[in-house]
Amino acid sequence: MHFNTFDLKYSSNLFHKMLSFNHSIKVRYVETDAMQRVHHSNHLIWFEECRIELLNHLKIPYEQFEASGFYIPVLSASIKYLKPASFNQSLDIGIMLRDKPKVRFRFDYTISHKKDLIARGQTEHTFINKMNKVVRPPEIFNTAVEKYWQ
Amino acid sequence: MHFNTFDLKYSSNLFHKMLSFNHSIKVRYVETDAMQRVHHSNHLIWFEECRIELLNHLKIPYEQFEASGFYIPVLSASIKYLKPASFNQSLDIGIMLRDKPKVRFRFDYTISHKKDLIARGQTEHTFINKMNKVVRPPEIFNTAVEKYWQ
Amino acid sequence: MHFNTFDLKYSSNLFHKMLSFNHSIKVRYVETDAMQRVHHSNHLIWFEECRIELLNHLKIPYEQFEASGFYIPVLSASIKYLKPASFNQSLDIGIMLRDKPKVRFRFDYTISHKKDLIARGQTEHTFINKMNKVVRPPEIFNTAVEKYWQ
Amino acid sequence: MHFNTFDLKYSSNLFHKMLSFNHSIKVRYVETDAMQRVHHSNHLIWFEECRIELLNHLKIPYEQFEASGFYIPVLSASIKYLKPASFNQSLDIGIMLRDKPKVRFRFDYTISHKKDLIARGQTEHTFINKMNKVVRPPEIFNTAVEKYWQ
Repeated sequence: MHFNTFDLKYSSNLFHKMLSFNHSIKVRYVETDAMQRVHHSNHLIWFEECRIELLNHLKIPYEQFEASGFYIPVLSASIKYLKPASFNQSLDIGIMLRDKPKVRFRFDYTISHKKDLIARGQTEHTFINKMNKVVRPPEIFNTAVEKYWQ
Repeated sequence: MHFNTFDLKYSSNLFHKMLSFNHSIKVRYVETDAMQRVHHSNHLIWFEECRIELLNHLKIPYEQFEASGFYIPVLSASIKYLKPASFNQSLDIGIMLRDKPKVRFRFDYTISHKKDLIARGQTEHTFINKMNKVVRPPEIFNTAVEKYWQ
Repeated sequence: MHFNTFDLKYSSNLFHKMLSFNHSIKVRYVETDAMQRVHHSNHLIWFEECRIELLNHLKIPYEQFEASGFYIPVLSASIKYLKPASFNQSLDIGIMLRDKPKVRFRFDYTISHKKDLIARGQTEHTFINKMNKVVRPPEIFNTAVEKYWQ
Repeated sequence: MHFNTFDLKYSSNLFHKMLSFNHSIKVRYVETDAMQRVHHSNHLIWFEECRIELLNHLKIPYEQFEASGFYIPVLSASIKYLKPASFNQSLDIGIMLRDKPKVRFRFDYTISHKKDLIARGQTEHTFINKMNKVVRPPEIFNTAVEKYWQ
């Protein structure tokens, strides 16, 4: 019933091409909890906001996929919480697509506050259609991302 | 640009028929904030949960309206916060439909913890169709609620 | 790469001085609901984000009040929902403090998407101390805001 | 009128003692998103609600730990999303503490709708004090849980 916690590796080298992007958010008051730090569910929401901004940046906004009948659900998610984040802090979210997307693809994330690494995580995705069936990524997606591996 | 804050009146008498219902929730940790009390946005979410449970109780669950192309958006909402609510408290949500629904209808709410009144509020609604047009309440809704005014 | 732009407008005229401020947000996917529009509880959260950014702009960030034992709870809130807002839209939140703050004070808000007015609302506040007692606004607050009425 | 039913299962066998507990929730409208299913961040919130209810069941409510200066932050979390969950569904959350807690301890979770497994996940925890330092679990916690391994 249990499964291995995913392990992030920061291995990158001269030969490893990837797609990476940064986005900053500011911690909302509603995102804090009675421990006076950020509630741990918000990291997933920030990961998503960063994915969305990456798609905006690539000029393939997510709503266009939905309008064409494509959805990109989350298949799995994992997070390691390294330091607490606090109200009104500006956090930097880094997203990386290390491997050229196939039917399944994975994003890695870091959340930082200045020099402090707050959390790191990853999410796995696939494209599905309106019948909830897994489908190949649409061509517009492949075109937008594959140049990062050329 | 501003508008009057809605004022709840607890006037009820022998001659005033209404539909009322109670639902209890328990305060989640994620619903607290750094003030170590419930964040003020959750009251709207509890009002909605109570509306949904009222419809479940009336055997007209909300998802059936959506499946038939009817939606019940919120037109306005107002809340008075009287006392803070805390983590792990069981709160009682009371909902009242004082007037037999017409095209627009209004719910009044109270949120209580034991003998303490935590908040009171109200929301206004109408039915719309998929084209976002205001429509008359569907017959199944009228049938389910109008007996409370007979 | 940044999604917040801070825009200050000192709109005032001969007959009515006030403090006003604008802040923009982008609709998160998590803020949508099954109606495929923004859930109505998020407007309160955006109002709060705009209040916080106003305090940041005035160089009196909210966390400094909390560090000194002052809190600014919401006493009441009301919203009129005029048009639905959608995922990935950039919304402009306007906040206005029409009257020089006394023990109680009120903010008015507008939420706009391009030329469309999405919602308007208001919140009432007071300062309290750690014992949950209403207190006069601290001097640093008065100093920061009262120049807008001079 | 109540939506929580608490159901205790002491599933254990000759080879593996453990502490397990079940808690049911009903999907709120606000928890859906534009894909018309539950947003993936809510699973973490339900896991937490289930942990809290387990502590309530064990007569060691979480707020008592906080009142004594102990906190139980989340060190890591992971989820596999197996099937979508929908509005107004009653979901069963199962929580298992497989190993007798040491300084770090791990909960495993399942989320089910009728016979369908919706998701499974796990969270890791430790106790910390007000200075954010890792500490041994307080005696009241050990006493409440260790009988499940006797």
